[in-house]
Amino acid sequence: MIDKLVDKIQKLNAPIVVGLDPMLDYVPEHITKKAYAEFGETLEGAGEAIWQFNKAILDTTYDIIPAIKPQIAMYEQFGIEGLKAFKKTVDYAKSKDIVVIGDIKRGDIGSTSTAYAMGHVGSVKVGSKTYRAFDEDFVTVNPYLGTDGVKPFIDVCKEDNRGIFVLVKTSNKSSGEFQDRIVDGKPLYEIVGEQVAKWGEEHMGDKYSYVGAVVGATYPEMGAVLRKLMPKTYILVPGYGAQGGKASDLAPYFNEDGLGAIVNSSRGIICAYKMDNYAKFGAENFADASRAAVIDMITDITTSVGLA
Amino acid sequence: MIDKLVDKIQKLNAPIVVGLDPMLDYVPEHITKKAYAEFGETLEGAGEAIWQFNKAILDTTYDIIPAIKPQIAMYEQFGIEGLKAFKKTVDYAKSKDIVVIGDIKRGDIGSTSTAYAMGHVGSVKVGSKTYRAFDEDFVTVNPYLGTDGVKPFIDVCKEDNRGIFVLVKTSNKSSGEFQDRIVDGKPLYEIVGEQVAKWGEEHMGDKYSYVGAVVGATYPEMGAVLRKLMPKTYILVPGYGAQGGKASDLAPYFNEDGLGAIVNSSRGIICAYKMDNYAKFGAENFADASRAAVIDMITDITTSVGLA
Repeated sequence: MIDKLVDKIQKLNAPIVVGLDPMLDYVPEHITKKAYAEFGETLEGAGEAIWQFNKAILDTTYDIIPAIKPQIAMYEQFGIEGLKAFKKTVDYAKSKDIVVIGDIKRGDIGSTSTAYAMGHVGSVKVGSKTYRAFDEDFVTVNPYLGTDGVKPFIDVCKEDNRGIFVLVKTSNKSSGEFQDRIVDGKPLYEIVGEQVAKWGEEHMGDKYSYVGAVVGATYPEMGAVLRKLMPKTYILVPGYGAQGGKASDLAPYFNEDGLGAIVNSSRGIICAYKMDNYAKFGAENFADASRAAVIDMITDITTSVGLA
Repeated sequence: MIDKLVDKIQKLNAPIVVGLDPMLDYVPEHITKKAYAEFGETLEGAGEAIWQFNKAILDTTYDIIPAIKPQIAMYEQFGIEGLKAFKKTVDYAKSKDIVVIGDIKRGDIGSTSTAYAMGHVGSVKVGSKTYRAFDEDFVTVNPYLGTDGVKPFIDVCKEDNRGIFVLVKTSNKSSGEFQDRIVDGKPLYEIVGEQVAKWGEEHMGDKYSYVGAVVGATYPEMGAVLRKLMPKTYILVPGYGAQGGKASDLAPYFNEDGLGAIVNSSRGIICAYKMDNYAKFGAENFADASRAAVIDMITDITTSVGLA
């Protein structure tokens, strides 16, 4: 799956991923109105609204994006009905040949991590039958519990060439509180990064590992250090755009082969129609605004990083 | 809710919580057979089997246990149908006046943590209506992302007196990989513990904070240190029983008031019927075996800790 992701990024010359993190506020009124008319102002109505929103964006962008990264929290807040919309989004994206990175940030001990892994990137047995529950291609994983927490994901991923991205340095302001603490003369995120590189050796694709890392766009110096520490690790880079990360800061996250990083934008794409730059599309054509924002993002990044 | 939990622990003299973490292997055949007969060997069948298993255990133990801790991964592995069983379990336990600690170990940045918090311990708006999705009393939270990741949970919890337990030192073997790393002369888990105590001051109950901590039973020396660092923090203690933690090691987790800790057992209770001690009950009466195991656990802990 990492090979497929790399291949798609190269073919489209688009080292980007669209964060499908729909808040209800993001969804244009004509969509929520229709959903509420059918299902009421209910959790089911909310699920329908975000699913229709996602579907429209996928329909207008599927041919120019290699991957999506739905943030499961935005669905989970609506309970079962929200998670149904998550599952529909995953399935629909895969039917369009888009790679799906489930942003789930799970992590627990042993058999519990195995259960999460089976549910998201593996399969589960029920009697004599086998099922895939959420069925993403990749998921994000929290490393705080150590190897016991991460290894089960790698083991499950090996069975069907799925992959993970382990949180190393997150894009938020207080990420430094624990992640930047100095341990044996270096910050904790470097220790975690070294461990990610080691875990990654266990499950390699052609050039890159199935075990990737999350490193925020908001910390380019740290990105440069981590890039060197984890040469075969694909880096998922959140924080571009709305969170403040600039394309000019992204070069350190890439390797000399022009690969090794995939940059996420969520609000910058899915809420494009609300921004001055794309307001001309109007709320009715929000998905066309998203397509225009994707094209601009690709140009912005490939130009800045020297891939254009 | 922390006051309610403390009150229930005192009334029942039972500083324990039952981990409802059902693997399909744990469910006796007469239950799975019936579920599969009705729904097939499907994810729905699996969900029905674990729900019926949980319900039977709740029906025989509800009057002697203050709380349950369902591990959401065990439900999430079966996708939507598993999560329906999770939700039914939460609702049923609450209808029996049992405090529910959702073991979800979520944690993300800002608005994303808020979404998780709204979905599990808060409420979400859909148009003019407000809904509670999963509606637990407490949830467990992963601190790796720092204050940005934890504070939104606390803010949401304040609205309706819900609470959280933050992972400080987990019970698994490789928990030391990152958690024990020495930072400014002390291990990271102490730094996290100090931060938990600080966060806790923001949301206090009568004697204890709504912000608790998770500290594994398998590390009693660390438990003793953390107990002192976080005097008003309730400690949720996993790792007793099947994971190797002994009642004789638990005293350091308690305060002098006999409170401050709640010990979890999962397999030791829900799989009691498979153990030599309780085999006499037979698989048909698995729930009675669980009740006997709860009573023995309470005696074991209260005697060892000096609460009997």
